[in-house]
Amino acid sequence: MTAQLTPELVATGPDATTRTTVIRPGMCGSGSLFVGQIGDWTWDTVSTVCGTNAYTARDGRGAPTYLAFHYFHVRGSESLHVRGLTFGDLLRVDSRVFGFGSESVLTLHRIRRGTGAPEHVDPAAFFAFDEPDCLYAQNFNRWVVRGASGGNEDLRSASPVDFRHEHLSALPPEHSPRRAHARLRALMTAEPPADERSRLVVDYPIDVSRDLNGVGLLYFAAYFSIVDWALVRLWRYRGGSDAGFLGRVVLDQRIAYLGNADAGAVLRVRLSREPGGDVPGADETVRAVLADRDTGRPIAVAEQQVKTGVVA
Amino acid sequence: MTAQLTPELVATGPDATTRTTVIRPGMCGSGSLFVGQIGDWTWDTVSTVCGTNAYTARDGRGAPTYLAFHYFHVRGSESLHVRGLTFGDLLRVDSRVFGFGSESVLTLHRIRRGTGAPEHVDPAAFFAFDEPDCLYAQNFNRWVVRGASGGNEDLRSASPVDFRHEHLSALPPEHSPRRAHARLRALMTAEPPADERSRLVVDYPIDVSRDLNGVGLLYFAAYFSIVDWALVRLWRYRGGSDAGFLGRVVLDQRIAYLGNADAGAVLRVRLSREPGGDVPGADETVRAVLADRDTGRPIAVAEQQVKTGVVA
Repeated sequence: MTAQLTPELVATGPDATTRTTVIRPGMCGSGSLFVGQIGDWTWDTVSTVCGTNAYTARDGRGAPTYLAFHYFHVRGSESLHVRGLTFGDLLRVDSRVFGFGSESVLTLHRIRRGTGAPEHVDPAAFFAFDEPDCLYAQNFNRWVVRGASGGNEDLRSASPVDFRHEHLSALPPEHSPRRAHARLRALMTAEPPADERSRLVVDYPIDVSRDLNGVGLLYFAAYFSIVDWALVRLWRYRGGSDAGFLGRVVLDQRIAYLGNADAGAVLRVRLSREPGGDVPGADETVRAVLADRDTGRPIAVAEQQVKTGVVA
Repeated sequence: MTAQLTPELVATGPDATTRTTVIRPGMCGSGSLFVGQIGDWTWDTVSTVCGTNAYTARDGRGAPTYLAFHYFHVRGSESLHVRGLTFGDLLRVDSRVFGFGSESVLTLHRIRRGTGAPEHVDPAAFFAFDEPDCLYAQNFNRWVVRGASGGNEDLRSASPVDFRHEHLSALPPEHSPRRAHARLRALMTAEPPADERSRLVVDYPIDVSRDLNGVGLLYFAAYFSIVDWALVRLWRYRGGSDAGFLGRVVLDQRIAYLGNADAGAVLRVRLSREPGGDVPGADETVRAVLADRDTGRPIAVAEQQVKTGVVA
């Protein structure tokens, strides 16, 4: 048992790591524990290949810098998707980091079942998303530091003093996470669907008992939970059951992070739904646009492509 | 970096393990991620010393058995408590397992900062709770299997075929977790405080977007989040702010698990509060009694002793 339970994180090159892991209760389920896990793998991998400890990094003035999530994309399949994991599943995770200058970094994770040999992560193969038994995760992160106000809405770009990025490969521009982020962000101003059963607005008060991370910021994985909290309400509004919601296969999900928020803030979530999608197998695309209810400040835009199993 | 980021789980005897770990975003914060982590350590330790893989264990009929949480107790201090952990903290965790027959098992974790030498976990020293820089966690677990109905309210005792427990030490009876569990359970029928500002009843609908684990049961760590979700409402009812709630130091918290529940259930949470406590430094004791709103079926009883910093 011991060997299997001890995850091995191994550098496989100057910009790459591999690991095997066992899925535990704290890494799966109906919530956002698995996406939180992916985020930790990003911090581990960047720490391993970029010379800085992401967990304790500081900028030139000595202020703590955080490797904040800016764009998060996970593509799965019916055989391997985020909520399809259960206790004891063995996974191999091959990861590779790409350079975007001193203030940003992109990490790709290719996740497979089993403990097979590590494989090099090639961007062309990754973005083809064509291996049905792979889960593909893309994290685009920016180093941030708290601004003078100390509030969660006041985060600024930063770079840890020991962050090494010059040795990282550039990503082919057609896969730019900045472009993907901009495409999602543009949905902030999209017209809602004409069909009133395909749209809903709900308010979510940030939950001090769940949503803040270890440095008091709104936790990146909590955005996934908040989006799902809202989407289950759209699902019920359309007549769906909780069991039906849990039975959906979320084939593709992405979030563009636009802002953070303090405890006490209320997020207004504008939801919309349309049939179909461009991911094979998806029969529905749902979107959530999150903004601070009181100030209108943008917080995030999320999109999911789903196989609901419901004949529309 | 690599060496530090790879947790080492090492058997230090026939009933004991030790590990070092780095606190990541997925392991800390305002929610229940750290208690979830402790639970995973219990499953790891039992898997290492008891011959069965807790993540994939099955009973004699081939049905999956789960190492369900029956009693969970964490004792901290002002210098080391559950919500006081942040990114990059290094911890050493010494763990030891005690025998309670074929259907139950007790695991003690002594958690310290740093990466010092492992130390033997002695029950007398553990239950003295007198090292101020230690976090003490006690997990009493029972093997369960789903009953014929398949519903979450229908769980039965079980034992995995390969579960070895005869080599484990017995715990001195004065520290019996059964007794501690019974003491908490007895609060189900306690009279509410006379002062109406010291009691509150709230209803919590089980959240399909957060609360279920990877096998569809109400996740043991979600009970902690649900209790906190309710306690923040009692706190606000008494005039407290969210910032004040986050500033509390929870010195001691314990939950007796009495039942599981399905998605769609609504839990009625009866809250009460009294000044003081028997843990050094505690200025308030709060309790939460959880039952199924519709059937009255008991779900859990929780108690926290807190240093609020508020002069009562």
